[in-house]
Amino acid sequence: MLKYEQIASRISSLIEDGHYEAGDKLPSVEILKTEYDVSKSTIINALKNLEKEGMIYQARGSGIYVRNPKRDGYLNLFTADGFSDDLKEHDVTSKILKVTEVKPESYIQNQLKIPENETVYYVERIRYVDGKVFCIETSYFNKNVVLYMNEEIATGSIFHYIENNLKVKVGFTDIYFKVDKLSKDQAEKLELSEGEPSLEYTQIFYTSTGVPFDYSDITFHYENSRFYIPSIK
Amino acid sequence: MLKYEQIASRISSLIEDGHYEAGDKLPSVEILKTEYDVSKSTIINALKNLEKEGMIYQARGSGIYVRNPKRDGYLNLFTADGFSDDLKEHDVTSKILKVTEVKPESYIQNQLKIPENETVYYVERIRYVDGKVFCIETSYFNKNVVLYMNEEIATGSIFHYIENNLKVKVGFTDIYFKVDKLSKDQAEKLELSEGEPSLEYTQIFYTSTGVPFDYSDITFHYENSRFYIPSIK
Repeated sequence: MLKYEQIASRISSLIEDGHYEAGDKLPSVEILKTEYDVSKSTIINALKNLEKEGMIYQARGSGIYVRNPKRDGYLNLFTADGFSDDLKEHDVTSKILKVTEVKPESYIQNQLKIPENETVYYVERIRYVDGKVFCIETSYFNKNVVLYMNEEIATGSIFHYIENNLKVKVGFTDIYFKVDKLSKDQAEKLELSEGEPSLEYTQIFYTSTGVPFDYSDITFHYENSRFYIPSIK
Repeated sequence: MLKYEQIASRISSLIEDGHYEAGDKLPSVEILKTEYDVSKSTIINALKNLEKEGMIYQARGSGIYVRNPKRDGYLNLFTADGFSDDLKEHDVTSKILKVTEVKPESYIQNQLKIPENETVYYVERIRYVDGKVFCIETSYFNKNVVLYMNEEIATGSIFHYIENNLKVKVGFTDIYFKVDKLSKDQAEKLELSEGEPSLEYTQIFYTSTGVPFDYSDITFHYENSRFYIPSIK
């Protein structure tokens, strides 16, 4: 863990343990710097981290405020992480339905900005949290960025593989979603009935230099998924 | 419009008109500063604005990249604005079901951090976009921040009233949501059938000094609502 991550984690423990409550003001950057005996930029990075997790809010010129603690089991959609990170205290597992190379439809080619004849890795999985069906996921990976894929990799967190093994720097992500009714095929995979509610979710991940590398369609099990967005003005 | 807003709007027109495409690099802050003949901080504020709208992505040390343009009619959940702002090219109207003062349940008192006997403004509305039912909304407003409320105010954008008339500086917002099935009462208001899908959405708005002032429960019409989150890593 880097220094700033250690400090972020110490401050977040103080918030989670109730030492600070929602609405409380944190000490200033200067005081935190002295308290933790680190550089100002380390404190600033730690605070940025806590802000993205929705633990604090930094008001320009007025101070740093503690927010409501994250609710357990909710997916944080504010940060472009794979969802294993949000659910790290839970048991996330996957059933692989397919790992292959395909020429995607032109719509997906456009989203991934690849030429017409190029193939991509295609992964289809059912994901489980604590043994309960969480979602079905179909993903297309740009092979210029995601250099290799197999069933073993897809069984774990693909996002960790991309960041830690391939050293890809993830930059941003676009999420689009709407509510719909389940098709027969979706319902079977999610162990629900046709016509029951679903969250239809499309997510496109980009590297920090703007290259799209993952186009995923996800259908969430409506009873087993909860979402959280700590927005700022 | 402030200077930085003018520049943000000019750059966003260039993106919308296709002068820049997704993945393109924008000129550097230094070049934009010269080009628009303004201070560096004006450019930085303009870029921050565009980043929150999901139009650009600023990679530390590497440059400013253009993102996919926003899809029309999608609600941007990344920024803590009232949704009238996202739908400004659409006709947003409201049917007021109730405007009154109530003592809220203790759960909502806690969320709004008000004492046990204090009343709040309660507003119940059905909202329409281009004449189609968009959502049902029940909102509780902290009277220490939202000093006055009546039917006329509730007919328009309450968010604009709070920001422009009451001069409240909005800081951040927590959004929690899940998918569910409509109750009979909800279905009637949304002109749907009982048991059809719904998006159940709770949003708490805070001032820039961490005071919660608006607790709202919103149920969206699943066929008439679409959502967008331009997340960053």
